[in-house]
Amino acid sequence: MEIARVIGNVWATKKDQKLNGLKLLVLKVLVDKEREKEGLIVASDIVGAGVGDLVLISKGGSARRAVGNIDAPIDAAVIGIVDSIEVFEDE
Amino acid sequence: MEIARVIGNVWATKKDQKLNGLKLLVLKVLVDKEREKEGLIVASDIVGAGVGDLVLISKGGSARRAVGNIDAPIDAAVIGIVDSIEVFEDE
Amino acid sequence: MEIARVIGNVWATKKDQKLNGLKLLVLKVLVDKEREKEGLIVASDIVGAGVGDLVLISKGGSARRAVGNIDAPIDAAVIGIVDSIEVFEDE
Amino acid sequence: MEIARVIGNVWATKKDQKLNGLKLLVLKVLVDKEREKEGLIVASDIVGAGVGDLVLISKGGSARRAVGNIDAPIDAAVIGIVDSIEVFEDE
Amino acid sequence: MEIARVIGNVWATKKDQKLNGLKLLVLKVLVDKEREKEGLIVASDIVGAGVGDLVLISKGGSARRAVGNIDAPIDAAVIGIVDSIEVFEDE
Repeated sequence: MEIARVIGNVWATKKDQKLNGLKLLVLKVLVDKEREKEGLIVASDIVGAGVGDLVLISKGGSARRAVGNIDAPIDAAVIGIVDSIEVFEDE
Repeated sequence: MEIARVIGNVWATKKDQKLNGLKLLVLKVLVDKEREKEGLIVASDIVGAGVGDLVLISKGGSARRAVGNIDAPIDAAVIGIVDSIEVFEDE
Repeated sequence: MEIARVIGNVWATKKDQKLNGLKLLVLKVLVDKEREKEGLIVASDIVGAGVGDLVLISKGGSARRAVGNIDAPIDAAVIGIVDSIEVFEDE
Repeated sequence: MEIARVIGNVWATKKDQKLNGLKLLVLKVLVDKEREKEGLIVASDIVGAGVGDLVLISKGGSARRAVGNIDAPIDAAVIGIVDSIEVFEDE
Repeated sequence: MEIARVIGNVWATKKDQKLNGLKLLVLKVLVDKEREKEGLIVASDIVGAGVGDLVLISKGGSARRAVGNIDAPIDAAVIGIVDSIEVFEDE
């Protein structure tokens, strides 16, 4: 999995009907506790995350398991809202 | 998923027959709302997207679910046409 | 999927028997219509592609579907020979 | 698989219930025996690894097999604690 | 698939029992016939490859098919020892 920050939302009316009812968040993946990686990820949210939240995302078939629909056409899902990260790095 | 811009089409006569009837678009993935990542992606289109459209793409097994054929030899699909993206980034 | 150029062949006698009979091509993925990405990809060919051809490749489980053998130990397959690519990019 | 160093832990209360009971470690992937790649990986731990340990991680569907639950929404798992690595590189 | 050079071995006693009996090699992926990409890959070996060998590796679910155990927690496998590579590149 990766740790990412929710930075927004994306809406699409013309879409695969199997996406109906799924909230789609825009995120940036953390490189470390201060910096974010270039690039946008869109993930389906199943835990009620919102803009600014630090979250856990899972990709591929695991994302389909997260939303409980193996036929969902999604390849990324928010699977948890991070309470805290404890990281020990050599100074 | 990723947000991408449709920049063209690709045609192939000699191909896996399981691709028959699938429209193949050429896309570039967005790095942020202004810039696109280097590299071309080809995705099967199921929502009627066209050149210039901003779309959602899904990859891997999820793409096969999007076209409703688990045996399709595709690994990327356009699953929605973006209406709007709302993004909040620290200035 | 990605667009790639066939640049050669690779042979292996000592191999997983489930590869028997599969032709293995060496390819480079296109970054845009003129340039190729660094790195070599090996893909199983099911459409009769040859050196110099521009082709469509599919990866992961989709590649196993392309060769029609879900147990094949391949993770990339050539699924079409490109006739033409039409690309519109802002100048 | 990749070789990674465990650098910490991450906790999430609001999460997919299928994550309950799974310990989540924060890791950095090795580039070679001395250096680590930029970026954080989160993986579910099934072998009792701790901060500072050098471990083997597996990704995608293989990670779900590691935790023995094909429906787990995880895409990375620690599958072994490295005893030793023997590497021969041209000087 | 990718072409890689075997550069060593890795051992782990505390590990997922489903790894028992699998030999784990350390490899570097080729960028072209002379250079290797930064980063270490660990793959399960099913063809008897050894240090210095040039091999074919397959990733993801395809690697599990290679070792003939769909529940193996591996995501990379050596599926062939390269006899020869024939590559034609524009000078």
